[in-house]
Amino acid sequence: MNRPLLIALFAALSAGLPAGVLAQDAKPAVAARADDATPVLVSADQWRAMAAAGDRYPMFAAERARVEREVRAAMAAGVKVPQPRDLGGGVTHEQHKANYKAIAGAGALYRMTGDKAYADFARDLLLEYARLYPTLSDHPAGKSSVKGRLFWQALNDSVWLVYGAQGYDAIRDTLTVDQRRKIDDDVFRRMARFLSEENAPYFDRIHNHATWATAGVGMAGYVLRDQTLVERALKGTARDGKAGFLRQVDELFSPDGYYAEGPYYQRYALAPFIIFARAIQQNEPERQIFKRRDGVLLKAVDVVIQSSYAGLLFPINDAMPDKGLDSEEIVTGVAIAYAQTRDPRLLSIAQGQGRTLLSPDGLAVAQGVATGEARPFDFRSMQLGDGPNGDLGNLVFLRRGGATGQALVMKNTQQGQGHGHFDRLGWLFYDNGQPVVRDYGAARFLNVEAKGGGGYLDENDSWAMQTVAHNTLVVGQASQFGGDWHVGEERPTKPLFFKAGEGLQIASARLDKAYDGVVLTRTLAMVEHPDLTYPVVIDLFRADGAKPTNYDLPLHFNGHIIKAFEAEHSVRERPVLGQASGYQHLWVDAVAAPSDKARSLTWLLGKRFYTYRFGASAPTSALLVESGANDPSFNLRREPALIQRMQGQADASFFSVLEPHGAYDATAETVSGATSQIRDIARTRGEGAEVIVLTLASGAKLALGVADDVSPIAAHAVRIDGQAYEWTGPYARFDR
Amino acid sequence: MNRPLLIALFAALSAGLPAGVLAQDAKPAVAARADDATPVLVSADQWRAMAAAGDRYPMFAAERARVEREVRAAMAAGVKVPQPRDLGGGVTHEQHKANYKAIAGAGALYRMTGDKAYADFARDLLLEYARLYPTLSDHPAGKSSVKGRLFWQALNDSVWLVYGAQGYDAIRDTLTVDQRRKIDDDVFRRMARFLSEENAPYFDRIHNHATWATAGVGMAGYVLRDQTLVERALKGTARDGKAGFLRQVDELFSPDGYYAEGPYYQRYALAPFIIFARAIQQNEPERQIFKRRDGVLLKAVDVVIQSSYAGLLFPINDAMPDKGLDSEEIVTGVAIAYAQTRDPRLLSIAQGQGRTLLSPDGLAVAQGVATGEARPFDFRSMQLGDGPNGDLGNLVFLRRGGATGQALVMKNTQQGQGHGHFDRLGWLFYDNGQPVVRDYGAARFLNVEAKGGGGYLDENDSWAMQTVAHNTLVVGQASQFGGDWHVGEERPTKPLFFKAGEGLQIASARLDKAYDGVVLTRTLAMVEHPDLTYPVVIDLFRADGAKPTNYDLPLHFNGHIIKAFEAEHSVRERPVLGQASGYQHLWVDAVAAPSDKARSLTWLLGKRFYTYRFGASAPTSALLVESGANDPSFNLRREPALIQRMQGQADASFFSVLEPHGAYDATAETVSGATSQIRDIARTRGEGAEVIVLTLASGAKLALGVADDVSPIAAHAVRIDGQAYEWTGPYARFDR
Repeated sequence: MNRPLLIALFAALSAGLPAGVLAQDAKPAVAARADDATPVLVSADQWRAMAAAGDRYPMFAAERARVEREVRAAMAAGVKVPQPRDLGGGVTHEQHKANYKAIAGAGALYRMTGDKAYADFARDLLLEYARLYPTLSDHPAGKSSVKGRLFWQALNDSVWLVYGAQGYDAIRDTLTVDQRRKIDDDVFRRMARFLSEENAPYFDRIHNHATWATAGVGMAGYVLRDQTLVERALKGTARDGKAGFLRQVDELFSPDGYYAEGPYYQRYALAPFIIFARAIQQNEPERQIFKRRDGVLLKAVDVVIQSSYAGLLFPINDAMPDKGLDSEEIVTGVAIAYAQTRDPRLLSIAQGQGRTLLSPDGLAVAQGVATGEARPFDFRSMQLGDGPNGDLGNLVFLRRGGATGQALVMKNTQQGQGHGHFDRLGWLFYDNGQPVVRDYGAARFLNVEAKGGGGYLDENDSWAMQTVAHNTLVVGQASQFGGDWHVGEERPTKPLFFKAGEGLQIASARLDKAYDGVVLTRTLAMVEHPDLTYPVVIDLFRADGAKPTNYDLPLHFNGHIIKAFEAEHSVRERPVLGQASGYQHLWVDAVAAPSDKARSLTWLLGKRFYTYRFGASAPTSALLVESGANDPSFNLRREPALIQRMQGQADASFFSVLEPHGAYDATAETVSGATSQIRDIARTRGEGAEVIVLTLASGAKLALGVADDVSPIAAHAVRIDGQAYEWTGPYARFDR
Repeated sequence: MNRPLLIALFAALSAGLPAGVLAQDAKPAVAARADDATPVLVSADQWRAMAAAGDRYPMFAAERARVEREVRAAMAAGVKVPQPRDLGGGVTHEQHKANYKAIAGAGALYRMTGDKAYADFARDLLLEYARLYPTLSDHPAGKSSVKGRLFWQALNDSVWLVYGAQGYDAIRDTLTVDQRRKIDDDVFRRMARFLSEENAPYFDRIHNHATWATAGVGMAGYVLRDQTLVERALKGTARDGKAGFLRQVDELFSPDGYYAEGPYYQRYALAPFIIFARAIQQNEPERQIFKRRDGVLLKAVDVVIQSSYAGLLFPINDAMPDKGLDSEEIVTGVAIAYAQTRDPRLLSIAQGQGRTLLSPDGLAVAQGVATGEARPFDFRSMQLGDGPNGDLGNLVFLRRGGATGQALVMKNTQQGQGHGHFDRLGWLFYDNGQPVVRDYGAARFLNVEAKGGGGYLDENDSWAMQTVAHNTLVVGQASQFGGDWHVGEERPTKPLFFKAGEGLQIASARLDKAYDGVVLTRTLAMVEHPDLTYPVVIDLFRADGAKPTNYDLPLHFNGHIIKAFEAEHSVRERPVLGQASGYQHLWVDAVAAPSDKARSLTWLLGKRFYTYRFGASAPTSALLVESGANDPSFNLRREPALIQRMQGQADASFFSVLEPHGAYDATAETVSGATSQIRDIARTRGEGAEVIVLTLASGAKLALGVADDVSPIAAHAVRIDGQAYEWTGPYARFDR
């Protein structure tokens, strides 16, 4: 979605008034007479307050100037409403996107300046759409299952409607009755009919694409004073509440505000939810939409911010790894949420975004920032329940050291629908401003037409979604759930425990139906110690299988290898690792023969070193690989990974520690702490529990005990070298 | 070298006084009585001005605070002067580096605060060195041909002396006669003797390592009031001027201020030149050292800044690609040059560096910045002659659009001594803040002990220096000059012409002795056209050979391939390209069979697309390759390249155009201009000249004619499709 989309024109607060007051003075559109054409998405008073802001609030003034530049450029280029033809990135696609921005922007500028030229330009565009739109049938290009009329997929048509309705609302009272009827009928009613009645199954889905559709249809309903459209949007085509926007609010977010598809789509889905919710609040405040489900829509804004590191969203599931908090949708979410809550922590996020909306909400943000009310956002450790009832797994964040300190993500969620990856129990780790253990994200070049029209590439299925492309265990060289997301959607992960304690933060989860007859249990802990400069991550991954099989545990590390373990290197010819399930995309660089000794790998990323020490319960080989094989179109990025491989075992324990250390300063040409502060890692299996012991370079020992039985009252004892490790409950830390 | 090295303590100006005045009031050390111990490298008045600055000038106050933090931390840790043992990056190496910084820093802080604790700490460190140093012989580690005593190479010992002398000068008058004699004799005289007398051939070299040695010995001479040491430093061990600092100034820079080894070493060499020059100016102003050779030392400061893009130095020859203008040496150079010239353009560079020196020069910079005198630095097109007389080739910069616009570098220099690469006639291209056509730089992880002790890796010889690792023609799959730099040093490149005109900037050079019997001529032009968004680069590379051979023209492009030409891809097994001369380090990704048609390759870098269109005078195959083969220690970065391969020809012309275009915006998810604005490239050979014709998407034709004869009065005519292209002189542009 595009920045200028968000000239978002809904209610909020003008300067100085407490939240919720102004919204009351907007007459509900549904109660107005059908021939009333005054604005309903932003009230006339709100427009006046925005006009009166002048240049007093820099963020608001900058946004106004930006929209002015953009709209004036569009006006200079003239009215262009081409016959639809192209895929995303193509000329007609980009022109229709530019047009809905221009309509919304021109409408806002007309209201704020009184300059009729803006209103006339929006009118001329809309009349041209009224001429074109009735002549259209399905878009000629692409392979979308639900084609649009203006765009290759109906999704973009819905977005057009959301923004077109806002611009139209702002200028509708400048039109003749004839013009208004023509645009009402031939643009907005036809689009609404196309998206809802003619594509009823699509409209009634519980899915973010349908949220854009319900938002567009509902906002058109408010503008046209058509309560039937509003009801259809809120309650589905049957108007029985089994579908529609309210049902989407109830089902697509967990009670904690987590969106089923993950952060990248949470960001995308946020826009129609929050934009339409704002329109509902403006026109039907009695619905208390922002209080629905204990305020889940506002929680969702907090969650999407928490789901980021150094400004970029955690790229789990289908996600572009360069998508960040400065995206249009999150700018919108932050502004609208701030106008509702006045939470000053949101203002620091707005400052980082560097812009806000040309809307009453954006005005509130700009005023808050200008008056110095911003406070730091509190990135914190948390677990977010997944599923409508919060009982379908969780997403865990363990954090330390603030916005660019350490962040560990553990993915114990549900599948995440069709955009979900087969990466349950996977983890990511961030440190010093960068991803250290990373996720490939989606195989896609967004809107780059030469790369599959800008959509998901074949390699998204063949590589990016596969289990081996993630930091979790692969059983029998196959992906979880046989690579079938519908199966995955039925089989939740079970969180075992979560505790963000002082010096020890820990989370554990179990997955027993990803592979037949194999129970997978992983425990990840972020541990601090006075002899270690930074927190380290201890990982214990157990597989309990019914019969001997092969286990591969990949680690997609980020950085340049400084020191690797002994291995045979493929230096003169580079083979491919496998045939399917993503293995066909891995080049083999080196293979170390099976050993029961712990190994280590050190790499350099930015200004810090990372040493990963790893061992397992049975002899394990270690492979260094790189993505990019079987990729004749150069669709994949080439990224390294380590794979620990154990063969012919039924049960397996993989244990490891990841340690950030040292400093590399290219400017000063100094290096310090390039050697790991950990000397050894060892694991001992006792009765119903295991203990991982780290021996530090200082001589200190740091141990973590993890029990099979997660009961808080079960007692455990493991003896190692004559020493007793005894504890009660699922885990314990020992310092010796 | 390290930031805090540069507490550089030489003369310059305190507030308000014009350049050159204060230096006069410093009594020449050589004229002082031998038992006088007042400071000579920075005068007492200069120290007082620095003390009086207080917090008025933020950059100066910040540097003072930084040095205070560092010195206090060293004092808290106590005196540590370990027995030398480690290579670069190791504990003893880093401790001795930290010590000379601490001695210099503590000396400065003592002078500025009067706090005797600082002086005592510097004294205690120096007395400990006086105890240790006489016991040392050659350093036990490493394989340097000239070992140090404190460090693995004598170079670092020289640097110790340069900084140690500064700190000693500041505190020498606080010592008892016994202490002074002990430190004079057992530290400074012994070090000076070791570096000059005991390593006379090293000291007398015309090389930057020897410059550090002469600077250290000369500064020790001023501090000890030992005119013999000063004379030895200035004129060599024989004191006849055939060696020593003055000879180095005369021979290591070209008249334009270019340093023979290239920008990375120019930066490194700058420090001793400029630091020692400042000490000479302070103590013997009558030498007029900054006016020597028409001010070549000040020109050298300008040249090193010109040799950068987006803050990073052009990484030609052995160079770390992350080395930038913020390096200690350039901070030093900018401060000392500013104090001499008061050129306000240097202040904007200092602002970008974000810091300055704790010295009279640094005070001048901080005052200039605080009073708003900074002006933008003018990065401009230029040619820099190489060699002591400027007649051994040149380095060309073609620029457009300011600091982060387009920059083309053409390397027509001399070899660049042992750190030179076999890359004559090579080019680099920068755009939009990033390298687009790039140089690998050196294969080295600076000071990372696990990577060959932090020195140059074997892959520096086997890959980074080789011709195929650069953007220039490889003849017979062998490197220029048979890969022998001594041979290269004897055979200059011949510049043919250079013109930085409006809309057309062009340079050409010829190399006739890199390969027996083959004359290489390259012409590179940066051309603007109203139908093209950005300037494009046209390249014509001609080889005139005596007999059929094989030609490979690599292009080391930076970015992700968006669209490649038709080719056979090595998708299931990846072979190595060759056996030697760097080819053994290239994996083959794809091979396109010989064709006489022009091809194109489009890639995406950051927010812009780049399309390279290329053809040749005979059927040519095209290979897509990547570095990283035969690299079992993961010492190489993996970077892509295109190789154009023509086989069995005596003469060859390769012609191409590189075009930046379009915009990719990940935040807004928009793409524009992803398609090249050039439709075709063609070349026609006429009588004694050739013409390259670009056909633009707009239909316009843009042609460049290049003559074999570079005489300005020779007339040329080439007919293409019935059209005549006629011109006089070495080149011409045609618009049709």
